[in-house]
Amino acid sequence: MSLKVKDISEDALIQRLLGKIPLVPSALNTGPGDDCAVAPLDDDHWQLLKTDAIVESVHFFPTDDARRIGWKAIARVVSDFAAMGGRPQWFLVTLGIPKSYSVEKLEELYIGMGACLQTYGGTLCGGETTSIPDGGSLMISVAATGCVKKSQLTLRSTARQGDEIFVTGRLGGSIAGRHLDITPRLHEADWLTSQNFPSAMMDLSDGLAKDLPRLAAASGLGYQLDFSNLPCHPGCTTTQALNDGEDYELLFTVNPDRISQLKQQWCLAFPDTPITRVGTIVRIDESMQVKGGWDHFAAER
Amino acid sequence: MSLKVKDISEDALIQRLLGKIPLVPSALNTGPGDDCAVAPLDDDHWQLLKTDAIVESVHFFPTDDARRIGWKAIARVVSDFAAMGGRPQWFLVTLGIPKSYSVEKLEELYIGMGACLQTYGGTLCGGETTSIPDGGSLMISVAATGCVKKSQLTLRSTARQGDEIFVTGRLGGSIAGRHLDITPRLHEADWLTSQNFPSAMMDLSDGLAKDLPRLAAASGLGYQLDFSNLPCHPGCTTTQALNDGEDYELLFTVNPDRISQLKQQWCLAFPDTPITRVGTIVRIDESMQVKGGWDHFAAER
Repeated sequence: MSLKVKDISEDALIQRLLGKIPLVPSALNTGPGDDCAVAPLDDDHWQLLKTDAIVESVHFFPTDDARRIGWKAIARVVSDFAAMGGRPQWFLVTLGIPKSYSVEKLEELYIGMGACLQTYGGTLCGGETTSIPDGGSLMISVAATGCVKKSQLTLRSTARQGDEIFVTGRLGGSIAGRHLDITPRLHEADWLTSQNFPSAMMDLSDGLAKDLPRLAAASGLGYQLDFSNLPCHPGCTTTQALNDGEDYELLFTVNPDRISQLKQQWCLAFPDTPITRVGTIVRIDESMQVKGGWDHFAAER
Repeated sequence: MSLKVKDISEDALIQRLLGKIPLVPSALNTGPGDDCAVAPLDDDHWQLLKTDAIVESVHFFPTDDARRIGWKAIARVVSDFAAMGGRPQWFLVTLGIPKSYSVEKLEELYIGMGACLQTYGGTLCGGETTSIPDGGSLMISVAATGCVKKSQLTLRSTARQGDEIFVTGRLGGSIAGRHLDITPRLHEADWLTSQNFPSAMMDLSDGLAKDLPRLAAASGLGYQLDFSNLPCHPGCTTTQALNDGEDYELLFTVNPDRISQLKQQWCLAFPDTPITRVGTIVRIDESMQVKGGWDHFAAER
C-alpha cells in the first residue's frame, strides 16, 4: 500500500523530498533547514529567502477577522527574518481561492497584509491568484526576500555545548486567538544580534517541544529543559507552553560568560518583554528527549 | 449580496486587491503587472522576483505523471524570467498537501522539479509544506528570484506605435498534454534581448487573446491582429491558438526597421523554431478588441 503523508512526520517528509532534488550547498551559505535560506548579496550582506503558507481551517478559521488573517500571513515570515538577525524586503503573495470566496473578505485580507508590511518595513512587489476546485480551502502562500548584515547572521546550527537556552516573551495558549496577532520580534532580534549575544537562534512556530530539538539537532548537540522555569502565558500549563506552537517568540542560546551582561542590558532595552532561561545545551548523549509540538501531517491531534 | 471572485475577472480582482495595500513603486523598477517584479541588485543587474502556483484539477489532472507536473511547476516560472530577458536563480517551493496524498507521488514531483532546475540553471533553496483539509486539491506554489542585465531588461509596457508583433513557436492545443512539457524560451529570450530586438516582451500563459491586450494596454497602445497568419500547432484552429493558453511562447514587439535583420539572424540561431509576425501595435483608438483566453475565475468555461 502506498505511504501517505499523514503516515510520516513533516520533518521526515521534507527530508525525503529534498533527497530527490539536486541541492547546491556550495553556492549557498545555508540550504533548506534553517528559518530562511541564505544567498550571496553584496560584500556586507546576505540575502535571506523564505516561503510560508497558511490555510483556512488549518491555520485560521473561516469566521476569523480577515484583516488579522492577512497580518498573520505576513508576520510569520517577518518572524523568520528576525530569527536570522535580518529584516524583510520584498514580498510575493499567492492566493489559492475557492470560486465562491468573497471579494470583500479578500480585500480585508490585503488591508491586514499591508498593515503588517508597513509596520515591519516590507514591500509587496508581486503575486499570483489561482482558483481552486469547489470545496477547497483558501490558501495564502507568502514568499519574501530579506537581508542581513554578515556580522549579524545567526543560524540554528551554531549552538555550543554549555550555552544557556533563552526564550523571549511567554509561551502557550496561542489558539485562544493570539495566533492571529503575532508580534514578530524584529527589533529584539536586531538588538540581540547586533551585540552578538546569540550563538544560535530560531523562532518558535511549532512549539518549544518541537523547535528546541530542531535547534539542538542542527547544532549536533542535545538539551536539558528546566520545565519549572518555562514562561507560561497566564492560565497556560507547562504542557501548553511546550506544545501549543505559534508563539513566534525567539529561541536562542547564549554563552554563559555573557548572560549577566545580556540580562542587564535587555531590561533597559525591552523593559516590557521578559527573557527567560529555559535550559542548557548539552552533549547529545546527555540530552533529554522531549516529544510534542505541532506536526502538520499528524493523523490525529 | 456579497461579490464573489467568480463574478469578476482575474485582472479586476488583482486590481481591487492591490488597491488595498501600500505599494512603493519608487523603490522598484516595476511593481505588480509585469511577468516579474524588478528590484535593485547591483550596478549591472536587476533582481527579478516571481511567484506562481499550480493546482490539481485546475492546472493538471490527478492522473498526470507527477514528474511532468513538477517540471511544469518550475518551467512556468523560468518562462517568466525569460520573458524579462533574465535568468532564474533561487527557488522556494510551498506545497499544500491533502493528508492522504501519496509520499511517492510527491517524491516523483520533486524529481521533475529538480530536472527542470538543472536544465535551466535554478537552485532550490527552501520550501514549506502544509496540510490542507480533506477533500482539498494539491497546490504547488513556486516563488523564485532571478537576475537580468540592466541592458537586457525588457518590460511589457514599452511597445511603440508601429512596432510589429511576433510570437515564437506555435500556438494552441496545449491541453492535449503539451501543457505539462513546457520548454521555456530562456535561450531565445536571452538571444533576443542581448541584441536589443524586442521593444516589449511577455510570455504567453493565458493565450494570445488574453495576453496581447495586456501587453498593448501596459504600453498604453492598441493592436491589430493578423488572424490569417497565426502559427497554429498542427490540428489546431485559429480559435484554439488564440484562446487555449499555456503556450509559454514569447510574445514580443519589434521596430519595423529591424525586422529583416531579426529574421535573418534568427534562422541561423534557432533554425528549428519559427518566429511569426502576427500583427501590429497601433494607437488605442485604432485597436481591435479581441476577447477570450484563460481566466481563472470565470464562472463558466
